[in-house]
Amino acid sequence: MNPVLVEVTRGARAESTHRGAAVVVDAGGVVAFAAGNIEVPVYPRSAVKAILALPLVESGAADRLGLTDAEIALACASHGGEPVHVATAESMLRKAGRDATCLECGVHWPLNETAARVLAASGQTATALHNNCSGKHAGFICLACARGEDPAGYVRPEHPTMRVVTAALAEVTGTVLDDTNRAVDGCSIPTYAIPLKALARGFARFGTGQGLARTLADAARRIRAVVTANPFMVGGTGRFDTELMTALGARVFSKGGAEGVFCAALPQLGFGIAVKADDGAGRAAQVMTAALVERFLRPSGEACALLTRLAQPVLRNWNGIAVGELRPCGPLQRPGTR
Amino acid sequence: MNPVLVEVTRGARAESTHRGAAVVVDAGGVVAFAAGNIEVPVYPRSAVKAILALPLVESGAADRLGLTDAEIALACASHGGEPVHVATAESMLRKAGRDATCLECGVHWPLNETAARVLAASGQTATALHNNCSGKHAGFICLACARGEDPAGYVRPEHPTMRVVTAALAEVTGTVLDDTNRAVDGCSIPTYAIPLKALARGFARFGTGQGLARTLADAARRIRAVVTANPFMVGGTGRFDTELMTALGARVFSKGGAEGVFCAALPQLGFGIAVKADDGAGRAAQVMTAALVERFLRPSGEACALLTRLAQPVLRNWNGIAVGELRPCGPLQRPGTR
Repeated sequence: MNPVLVEVTRGARAESTHRGAAVVVDAGGVVAFAAGNIEVPVYPRSAVKAILALPLVESGAADRLGLTDAEIALACASHGGEPVHVATAESMLRKAGRDATCLECGVHWPLNETAARVLAASGQTATALHNNCSGKHAGFICLACARGEDPAGYVRPEHPTMRVVTAALAEVTGTVLDDTNRAVDGCSIPTYAIPLKALARGFARFGTGQGLARTLADAARRIRAVVTANPFMVGGTGRFDTELMTALGARVFSKGGAEGVFCAALPQLGFGIAVKADDGAGRAAQVMTAALVERFLRPSGEACALLTRLAQPVLRNWNGIAVGELRPCGPLQRPGTR
Repeated sequence: MNPVLVEVTRGARAESTHRGAAVVVDAGGVVAFAAGNIEVPVYPRSAVKAILALPLVESGAADRLGLTDAEIALACASHGGEPVHVATAESMLRKAGRDATCLECGVHWPLNETAARVLAASGQTATALHNNCSGKHAGFICLACARGEDPAGYVRPEHPTMRVVTAALAEVTGTVLDDTNRAVDGCSIPTYAIPLKALARGFARFGTGQGLARTLADAARRIRAVVTANPFMVGGTGRFDTELMTALGARVFSKGGAEGVFCAALPQLGFGIAVKADDGAGRAAQVMTAALVERFLRPSGEACALLTRLAQPVLRNWNGIAVGELRPCGPLQRPGTR
C-alpha cells in the first residue's frame, strides 16, 4: 500500500489525495530517498524518451544526417505541437530523406491549446507532426535511414531499429525487456514495465555516465547538453519539464510520461529520480518530482520560487480565485509547511 | 482506507488504480451497496446541479419567465459549450431581461473539442456562455430576477438567491451547510462538503419525492422529466450523462461533478447513488457509476451494450490500437469478468 504523497485541497479540506511511490538513488544503487513500493514495475511511457534517443547519437546517425542540437532535443520531447516543434520534426525527416507520411505515431491536435486554436483558425487540421511524440518518431526514422534500414514498421518491437532502441533502454536500466513485460504505448511503440528503482538508477547512470560504456556515456552527456540548451524543444510553453530545465539548467534533467510517471537526473549530485502516481495523475507526479528536486538541489533565487510554484501550486478557478492547492505530504512534505 | 474500485490496464498489467467510495441507498437511508468510507464529506461540485435548480422550478420562476423544458434542463447542465447550449443560455438570460455580461461563472473554451475548434476557426473567442456552467448560472439569474432581486453577486453565499439555492441542497440532503464546510467551486459558487451517503440519500429523495415537501417533490419530478426529454442539454456530444440518459431514459438520472464525484438516481428502484474517486479522477467515477447502474438496473439490448462500454471501456491509442481498458474491480467487479 503506497502512502498518500500529494493532497489536493479546496477550502479547509483535502478534496482529493494521490498515493504513489518515489525513489532517489545513485548509479551504484544506493537509495537516498524512498516512499512506497519502489520495486513495482511501471511502464515508463514517455519518461524514457531521452534514453530511447541514445542510439541516434551513439551510433553517429545524428551526425551523419547533420541533425542540429534542437533536432536532437526534439527526439527526447513530449512537445506541445507549437510551430517550432512541427518545423523541427519536419526538418529531421527531410534530413533522413523522408516526410511526415513515414510517421507511425498517429495524429492528435497540439497539446498546447493556443497552438491548437491557431491551427484551427487558419483552416488547417492536425497531422502526425503535431503529435507530442513526432520528434521521437522522427528520430527513430533518422536512425533507421542512417543505418540503411527501411523505416516502415519501426514502431514494432521486432523492427531492427526498435531492437537497437530497446537494447539501449535495457542497458541503461539494467533490466530484461521482452514480451513478458511489454505493452503498447500511446504512440504505438513498445513500452516495458520496469521496476521504479531500476528506472531511477538508469537516470542516475544517464546523468553521470557511471556504469555505462564510454560511447553510451558520451551520448548521454551530449543529449543532456542539447536538452539543457534547448529546453523549449522537449516540451514547450508552460510545460513542466521546460519550466524546470529553463530555471535550473544542467543541474536537472527531467522528463514526464503518461499515467503519472516522471523520471529525472540530478547530475551534479549523482542521483536519479523516478516517481509513479498510483492513479496515473500527471498533476501528482509533477508535484512529487518538484518536491524531490527541491529537497535535493535546494535552489535559491528565481529557481527556488519556481520550485515552490511547481511543488505546491495554487489552484485557481475560472475567475482566478484561489480555491485550494496541490501539496506534497507524508514523506514528501516540504520543510516548514503543515 | 478506501478499496481499489477501478483498474486501468495496459497489456497484461494494471498500469494505474483508483481507490474510492461508493454507496447506493434508498430514501429511508437503507443501504443497498457500500464500498469504502461512505460517511466521508465530499464536495459534490457539479453533481448536485439538478438539486440547485429546484428553487427555479419550485418557486414558479421558471414558469413566470416562460422557460422551456430545454432551458430548465440546461440549468442542470455541465455542457460542452456546443452552439445549442450557448444559444439556450442566451435565451434564458434574455427571458430574465439580462445578457451574458451578468454571468459570474468565468470564461473557458468549450469542453467539446470540435465546438472549440469551430469557434476558433470562425475567428471568435470563448465567452462566459461557453463555460460548462453557463446554464446553471443563467438559471440563478432567472431565479433572482423572478424574485425581484438584483442578480449582481449571486455567486456569493450571502446573496438572497444563493441562500434559497443552498437551502434546497440542505433540505434534500438533510445536512447543515454553513461556513464550516464551505469552499469555492470552479464557477465561483459555494460548494459544501456533504457525507457521501447523505448525497446518495438526497438523490434517492430527488428520484422518488419521498421525504420531500410536496412542492419540492413536484419540482424534482419535473426536472427529471425535462432532463430525460432533453439529455443533450445536460452534457452534449459524447458526454457520459448524456449517453447514459439517452439510452436509459427515465430509468436513470445521473450527473457528474469535478474531482471524481458522481451522483445518480434510479427512480423506479427508489435508489440514490453517490461515488467519489479518492484521487479526483473523472474516468474512475464514470466507471464506478456505470457499474452500479448496470448492477441495479440490469438493462438489456442496446442499453446493456452501452453500459458495458461505459463500465469497462477499451482504451485505444492514437492509432486506434486497443492498448488496455478501464474496469471496475473489488466490490465493484462485474459478474462474469475476471
